[in-house]
Amino acid sequence: MNSFNFKQYRMNPDREVLVSRHKVRSYECDAYRHVNNAVYLNYLEFARQEALEQKGFDLVRLQDNGMQVVIHQIQIQFLKPLRTGDTIEIRTQLASHRRVSGIFYQEIVRQSDDRVCARAAVTWVFTNAEGRPIPIPQEVIRAFAR
Amino acid sequence: MNSFNFKQYRMNPDREVLVSRHKVRSYECDAYRHVNNAVYLNYLEFARQEALEQKGFDLVRLQDNGMQVVIHQIQIQFLKPLRTGDTIEIRTQLASHRRVSGIFYQEIVRQSDDRVCARAAVTWVFTNAEGRPIPIPQEVIRAFAR
Amino acid sequence: MNSFNFKQYRMNPDREVLVSRHKVRSYECDAYRHVNNAVYLNYLEFARQEALEQKGFDLVRLQDNGMQVVIHQIQIQFLKPLRTGDTIEIRTQLASHRRVSGIFYQEIVRQSDDRVCARAAVTWVFTNAEGRPIPIPQEVIRAFAR
Amino acid sequence: MNSFNFKQYRMNPDREVLVSRHKVRSYECDAYRHVNNAVYLNYLEFARQEALEQKGFDLVRLQDNGMQVVIHQIQIQFLKPLRTGDTIEIRTQLASHRRVSGIFYQEIVRQSDDRVCARAAVTWVFTNAEGRPIPIPQEVIRAFAR
Repeated sequence: MNSFNFKQYRMNPDREVLVSRHKVRSYECDAYRHVNNAVYLNYLEFARQEALEQKGFDLVRLQDNGMQVVIHQIQIQFLKPLRTGDTIEIRTQLASHRRVSGIFYQEIVRQSDDRVCARAAVTWVFTNAEGRPIPIPQEVIRAFAR
Repeated sequence: MNSFNFKQYRMNPDREVLVSRHKVRSYECDAYRHVNNAVYLNYLEFARQEALEQKGFDLVRLQDNGMQVVIHQIQIQFLKPLRTGDTIEIRTQLASHRRVSGIFYQEIVRQSDDRVCARAAVTWVFTNAEGRPIPIPQEVIRAFAR
Repeated sequence: MNSFNFKQYRMNPDREVLVSRHKVRSYECDAYRHVNNAVYLNYLEFARQEALEQKGFDLVRLQDNGMQVVIHQIQIQFLKPLRTGDTIEIRTQLASHRRVSGIFYQEIVRQSDDRVCARAAVTWVFTNAEGRPIPIPQEVIRAFAR
Repeated sequence: MNSFNFKQYRMNPDREVLVSRHKVRSYECDAYRHVNNAVYLNYLEFARQEALEQKGFDLVRLQDNGMQVVIHQIQIQFLKPLRTGDTIEIRTQLASHRRVSGIFYQEIVRQSDDRVCARAAVTWVFTNAEGRPIPIPQEVIRAFAR
């Protein structure tokens, strides 16, 4: 994954993009009346969970089967502030993967003007229940890497 | 509002019920794998915000015009735990009102089995920007109290 | 517990009060620049967790031993808004208890002027891992009910 | 700031490190019984707020004076999971700065074994109330850059 360059990276037009929608809620905003930075990570997690579900995977069942997707690193850029009532699209794509780890590239796009308000690269590792890395199941790779 | 009896109270079939929908997200659950108690108040706030919007009111605009809906008291019963992936309906009804204050009655209902998982009475006061109670605008009463 | 009257209830001077401290953080405040209502439940949970720890109990260990303290009802009054930087004391007292359930009475007090900013009654049930009520262990009662 | 290399970066021994302490709370943990990723950003924000306060600055007053510290980018590595009851130290250092922007380097260290559980680089821009970049006040630079 050394070759992944966040700054230059854009959505890969040849790979599937999974989409989740959300409308910003009042309790997600802080004293600046903007969505608080930490809440963006909630949005990204929500979209990854939905992306897995759209592909037929269930995080709770994975966990029950002794598998976890452990987040190792997040790099996120905040480009435009989000406000209560903004409708956003969170787009998720598998940017790259190796034997036990991968990178999801995610963008948060405001629907009213189609502006990218935040973009992120999320590096994760597939592990067993004890947190030891294990090979990503083939069906997960097949589901996302095309 | 002294006559409001939370324990006995049920949705009033003669008054409008406003409905919001939400699917429980992983980050809303705690170590028991249930939605954390505090998150229920987020759900209730989200539904009240949507109820106001469905009626043509905008909390941010109200605030810009020097009006606030200040929550004075919340009574909430947790009846069934909620889990990641549960789809819920949050139902909101104006239960009663006086000159400057009112009570929203709210229920959180799990869609899969139509069970009421939580129920709440939320007492609020209409105030100016300084937090001083002011009469509830007639259009707010007309919108909800019918 | 039918005799518990939240409105009239005050701290019982003959029973121990357990105290936790917290300084309000920017991310806990919303667009009104006040602590968001839901965050008060976080404060109350934090103080109950600390109260149990101060008495030698550990929620994670209880959970590992198949016991849970399940919150059944919360009644909370918001009396004064809290702002970033306010130092608060959260006071917790066992108000009453029966065989399988009890009520914690909690107050959130601003240190600068010793004003009660919020007060709450939290009704809980002691359960096994499956959520079935079980008698409160004698050592828990002994620790709090004096 | 192009020369900032997160992967290689370590605390600069010649610059002041500001320290905040926190004990992990139950409501900050998710279904894995670990602190949820988004909560780490709360911790980092809390520590930056405290660092500014320790240096005599007050974010609310800055905001009242039309100045904001707007976060532009966060890069965070999760190295060890945190659990309820873990006491952590959040260490904050100004890693570098230019005319209108700077980078805080932050580490979250578990006190029991002095392990770095997370490390982050937070890039921020000093702006006026409209969000337009303005030069960092000299007293801010003097307070941190030594």
